[in-house]
Amino acid sequence: MQTRILSADDTRALVRRVGLDALMDQLIQDLEEAIHGYDPDHTEIPVRAGFDYELPAPGLLEWMPACNGSKVTVKIVSYHATNPVRRGLPTVISTISAYEVGTGHLLGVVDGTLLTALRTGAASALASRVLAAPDSRTLGLIGCGAQAVTQLHAISRSFPIDKVLVYDSDPDVAASFPARVAFMNLEVEIADLDHVVGEVDILCTATSVDPGAGPVLQEQATQPWLHVNAVGSDFPGKLELPASLLRRAFVTTDFPEQAMKEGECQQLAGSEIGPSLSDLIREPERYRDVRQQLSVFDSTGWALEDQVVMDLFMRHARDLGLGSEIEIEHVSPDPHDPYGDLHGDLHTSIVQREFAA
Amino acid sequence: MQTRILSADDTRALVRRVGLDALMDQLIQDLEEAIHGYDPDHTEIPVRAGFDYELPAPGLLEWMPACNGSKVTVKIVSYHATNPVRRGLPTVISTISAYEVGTGHLLGVVDGTLLTALRTGAASALASRVLAAPDSRTLGLIGCGAQAVTQLHAISRSFPIDKVLVYDSDPDVAASFPARVAFMNLEVEIADLDHVVGEVDILCTATSVDPGAGPVLQEQATQPWLHVNAVGSDFPGKLELPASLLRRAFVTTDFPEQAMKEGECQQLAGSEIGPSLSDLIREPERYRDVRQQLSVFDSTGWALEDQVVMDLFMRHARDLGLGSEIEIEHVSPDPHDPYGDLHGDLHTSIVQREFAA
Repeated sequence: MQTRILSADDTRALVRRVGLDALMDQLIQDLEEAIHGYDPDHTEIPVRAGFDYELPAPGLLEWMPACNGSKVTVKIVSYHATNPVRRGLPTVISTISAYEVGTGHLLGVVDGTLLTALRTGAASALASRVLAAPDSRTLGLIGCGAQAVTQLHAISRSFPIDKVLVYDSDPDVAASFPARVAFMNLEVEIADLDHVVGEVDILCTATSVDPGAGPVLQEQATQPWLHVNAVGSDFPGKLELPASLLRRAFVTTDFPEQAMKEGECQQLAGSEIGPSLSDLIREPERYRDVRQQLSVFDSTGWALEDQVVMDLFMRHARDLGLGSEIEIEHVSPDPHDPYGDLHGDLHTSIVQREFAA
Repeated sequence: MQTRILSADDTRALVRRVGLDALMDQLIQDLEEAIHGYDPDHTEIPVRAGFDYELPAPGLLEWMPACNGSKVTVKIVSYHATNPVRRGLPTVISTISAYEVGTGHLLGVVDGTLLTALRTGAASALASRVLAAPDSRTLGLIGCGAQAVTQLHAISRSFPIDKVLVYDSDPDVAASFPARVAFMNLEVEIADLDHVVGEVDILCTATSVDPGAGPVLQEQATQPWLHVNAVGSDFPGKLELPASLLRRAFVTTDFPEQAMKEGECQQLAGSEIGPSLSDLIREPERYRDVRQQLSVFDSTGWALEDQVVMDLFMRHARDLGLGSEIEIEHVSPDPHDPYGDLHGDLHTSIVQREFAA
């Protein structure tokens, strides 16, 4: 039983050969199809759980499992807001593994760091396609870290964006943003927070605000048709949007139960939350009027997205001959004998230890 | 950031070079130290959760995480009772991964199939050392599959066992057992269930009884000092021992909350359950009198055991130069730019796609 492992070099080679734009376009399409076909009676996705701690750095390490009847995907994802400054590492570090239903065999392991950023961008693009004005030209970004890059990339593949307004509480992170997204050939302007929120057609919030320190935005005037992808809120007490803005908006979520526990929807009663992203994608025409109204996609992260992005990378890896096959599980020739093939040098080993003693 | 992966060949080489007996002795010792030092304020272990399903084969796939302050271990373990007959595979197939607290980096991946069998045996040996008569000479096994091999191995390293009575509902599995444990040079007799239960000093139950079909044992006379390691019960409704036997016995558990949900202790009220295995190992003298009485170790499996057995294998692998180092996480040179090192051939790729279109 072989396990297919994509190394970081394999992942880099894969992305370079497929191309970032093509990969993002495929991911958005695959994710749309998966969400369209999503059936909770067939695909089981529990609310994620994990460990949170204060030392050696305040952070989280969570597991996000999904079972689709033939395969279980488990993403292990960590969040450490101090990683970039303290360790030169991304805020989010992750790996995704897949297991065969019916045996439990580990099918494969891939990076989840880049893949999480990609799929989070793709999910915002899908929510925006249903809820934002189709002619949206200005995109705002609150928080200019790693997730902001893929938010902009995914949404710019879906809308005629020609101007990007960005804000980060750390001026250095804002200042470095234009160079990071130069490959998209868009006009990027660093602005103050109110200016960003007030002017744009689509807004993405992806900050590392501490739990209890938010919301990042205060109530203020926005474009009447503003669509917000709220990406950062993913822990009890962590909030980016004010409750008053949420209450004025049409609110959708990737995963309602989780959003009420960890997302912006912590601030809402269940009855104040609109249909889920999968409802929207199944019947986009039904929500056409929302495009003229304020709307929020509360994106806490959904294991279905991880399954889709892993599948896409594994498919390309197979086609391109990338990755290594390693047998990891020790499966003895006799299923009833865990020691079946282990007796080889046992006697020698015992003799050696007797000599050594 | 490298991930150390032990292949099945590495695992086989490691076991052959260390020796099965030496490895089991070390594991029992390491596990005793870990349980002795276990502090629930420092090491967090949630009750396991997972998916259970009927197709393609009735089974379970569960995750068992543990966080000790510097490392998170996650065992993914599957249970499919029909695996041996239908697929020639073990009932339990598993892998164990470790992650660094503070980054979430995947430190390593090892087999969990052999390792689960080993650590489950080691846990029964430790419980038996506290609760069974020290001069126990006869061991009984109800269920003669893979787990029975390591139960016998671990306990025979701790007691002067000279006779083994075994029973399995499948006569072929019982018949093949003596050959599987021939390396231990013990007298092994296939017997009927009542005979096994009635005669032995220590009994291990490790069956694949279906949930709802148990208990496997009925109330009957036993040696007054019998110690039972009940290993098989690990799912709601799955039971090996009758409630009346449990009520007559001193009952300990590896993980009380989990035992009440999945173990024999499903049949008991919380007040009927004795101190935990860690209580016993911290103060063995306090429970000396129990050695003359009926006792049961309700072993549902504890993620601390997985952490200990993975650590042992990783330590030997490092010493022996076994395993491969692979960089899996895609960590860009700029933590704020997931695409930092991915632009290389992007333009070429786009051009190629334009030619192809």
